[in-house]
Amino acid sequence: MKTRLPAPPGMTWIDGATTAPRGFRAAGVRCGIKTKGPDLALLASMTEAVSCALFTTNAVKAAPVLVSMEHAASRQVRGFVANSGCANCATGERGLQDAYEMARLAAEGLGIPEDQWLVGSTGVIGTFLPMEKVRAGIDEAVESLSPEGGPDAARAIMTTDTRDKQVALEVEIGGRTVRIGGMAKGVGMIQPNVATMFAIMTTDAPLDPEALERCLRAAANRSFNCLTVDGDMSTNDTVALFANGAAGGDPLESHPDHLARFQAALEAVCVDLARQVARDGEGATKLVEVRVSGARTESDARALALAIANSNLVKTAFFGNDPNWGRILMAAGNPGIPLDLNRLRVTLAGHPVFEYGRPAGHDEAAVSRAMETEELLVTFEMQDGDAGVSAYTCDFSYDYVKINAEYRT
Amino acid sequence: MKTRLPAPPGMTWIDGATTAPRGFRAAGVRCGIKTKGPDLALLASMTEAVSCALFTTNAVKAAPVLVSMEHAASRQVRGFVANSGCANCATGERGLQDAYEMARLAAEGLGIPEDQWLVGSTGVIGTFLPMEKVRAGIDEAVESLSPEGGPDAARAIMTTDTRDKQVALEVEIGGRTVRIGGMAKGVGMIQPNVATMFAIMTTDAPLDPEALERCLRAAANRSFNCLTVDGDMSTNDTVALFANGAAGGDPLESHPDHLARFQAALEAVCVDLARQVARDGEGATKLVEVRVSGARTESDARALALAIANSNLVKTAFFGNDPNWGRILMAAGNPGIPLDLNRLRVTLAGHPVFEYGRPAGHDEAAVSRAMETEELLVTFEMQDGDAGVSAYTCDFSYDYVKINAEYRT
Repeated sequence: MKTRLPAPPGMTWIDGATTAPRGFRAAGVRCGIKTKGPDLALLASMTEAVSCALFTTNAVKAAPVLVSMEHAASRQVRGFVANSGCANCATGERGLQDAYEMARLAAEGLGIPEDQWLVGSTGVIGTFLPMEKVRAGIDEAVESLSPEGGPDAARAIMTTDTRDKQVALEVEIGGRTVRIGGMAKGVGMIQPNVATMFAIMTTDAPLDPEALERCLRAAANRSFNCLTVDGDMSTNDTVALFANGAAGGDPLESHPDHLARFQAALEAVCVDLARQVARDGEGATKLVEVRVSGARTESDARALALAIANSNLVKTAFFGNDPNWGRILMAAGNPGIPLDLNRLRVTLAGHPVFEYGRPAGHDEAAVSRAMETEELLVTFEMQDGDAGVSAYTCDFSYDYVKINAEYRT
Repeated sequence: MKTRLPAPPGMTWIDGATTAPRGFRAAGVRCGIKTKGPDLALLASMTEAVSCALFTTNAVKAAPVLVSMEHAASRQVRGFVANSGCANCATGERGLQDAYEMARLAAEGLGIPEDQWLVGSTGVIGTFLPMEKVRAGIDEAVESLSPEGGPDAARAIMTTDTRDKQVALEVEIGGRTVRIGGMAKGVGMIQPNVATMFAIMTTDAPLDPEALERCLRAAANRSFNCLTVDGDMSTNDTVALFANGAAGGDPLESHPDHLARFQAALEAVCVDLARQVARDGEGATKLVEVRVSGARTESDARALALAIANSNLVKTAFFGNDPNWGRILMAAGNPGIPLDLNRLRVTLAGHPVFEYGRPAGHDEAAVSRAMETEELLVTFEMQDGDAGVSAYTCDFSYDYVKINAEYRT
């Protein structure tokens, strides 16, 4: 079951993923890195674009991340070439040359400068890319590139993902129709900052690079940076937004209300992708939203929400449908942010379980039954200020252990 | 199977736990808080003592921690009264009064001032102590207090622990025999700082409070602060050392070499307890030591060792005997400390798996077989400096999920 939050007022979810916005083409093909399924993705704006990309803060960065960081600095990146099945990480100089070659091959195939490409690789750490397969794959992807290829590209970046993650949204801004599309992959090694393996967004909105970066950082702070599956940060995380302006009209930043509307739409897209990733977390039986409100600052709210969302003890309790609010308090206390239990209310699946210093007098069996759902909402309601944020995670089941104890065997 | 590292040169492991040092008495009795087993512990020096206690940094502190923090400030605490089966946490004013009463009852029973007691509670968060049972239990513990009671006290603080954790060590210092004893409990909610539920140490060494505090903090930094089971920090963590000077002679701090010898002995005791806790981690099939060497600073070394020891992905791989060094690199990169992979060597169970920028060319099946052990050593050998530290953890199995999904059901 796949549920989506209602689109914000005046906006509409549409099909097409990263190729929903005008001027983008994509493809996803199989080149044989994985044992089955498509494993090579290509995405590009056919016209020039501005961009922003955010990367893992892990000290161990994969070769494609190093190449992408170099290219992204110009803020003119408009293409993404990626493989699944091999992370090209801890592969030294040879890995770096392989990553450069991926960008060069895509560039030559499409006549887009080499330094306008991001490169992505996802899969096992510590093995070299099978470059013959990759070369053939990029050739084939160039051939099959299409304005309807967004969903194919989304499928080609999957590893242990059980579902592809894609989204597109349409919004009227200042009399023109703007579209934002996106795709993501990631099921484990998911933790802020930029908690996902890949999340690549496209838009046909006209934006200058500074405005675009502000929008992307703000949206990421309320989506990918609020997402955790297992507290392990990937070596390959890449989040990017390409904007080619094909929707026409004035740059959005020339009208503050236009930019704000775009910002809201982008956040909706990013939150939707983050929810898709959390729902598909390794071994997950439920999507969990931890909604903190009444905090002094958004930064406090995020730290508290993530501390709860990251706790193995909280997440195993959710798997067992155990309304164990004591563990939620314990987890919330971990960052050391002052908590006044006498001004705190906690609800699980709509049922208060802790209210103002004491248990809420709830029926534990009834709350446990209500927790048997595919989308569990936890609210953590403080009275210290106006800031709030939601963190997205999943429960922690036997299958997480199974998947990760047996990953390579 | 329970293995112990060899005692440092000239030191001897002995029996007796916290009552091995002269002048201490203890008891462990059943008062009926848990469904079975002893659940009330008492420990005290019969003469005055100096002390230091370290507590959880969780913002949510249990009532007994608040009371103990107040009492410990004088550095004259010499008694510990504790129950298992109920954490007395998130219990408001009533919980606080209950914790004070525990100290008062122990004080009255033994004629030791009320403010010379630490109070401990461990178990489920959010329920009140059954004080009638606790009162009867303290009375009975006072009656049965004995110079051989250390092991009984260690058993009475167990919750989901499958084994009691106790240790005692004898060392010659400046012509006199000094003893150090200890007990600990803890299997989950184990994370620095002061990563354990309880670790209470006793010694008959003569020390002033300042020297004692320096010794305890240094020893904790290389033991309890290097210990992690699940990354969840408890609301009730308490680490303490009581020193009553019954061994006689000059204060240790008057001879730097005497103090250094005591420091080494105390560290051996704390590391032994930390290893016992890690080995008994919820669902653990093996004790894991992550030994980082060649780091710039001890603080860097600790952060790296703990990042590896805390990674769910690393720990599930260990459960599956998967020599997945890629996850070790990923985890080590999380704190953002610069890593030069070309100057790094990683071994698993004595087998190099990553050497200076590339896989070590090892036989994966052979390494996997070597990992089928109850004590797995991981070395992470850098070349950036002289600092090193070991972190202690366990693997991550199905049973961790089982234990914690079903804890209260």
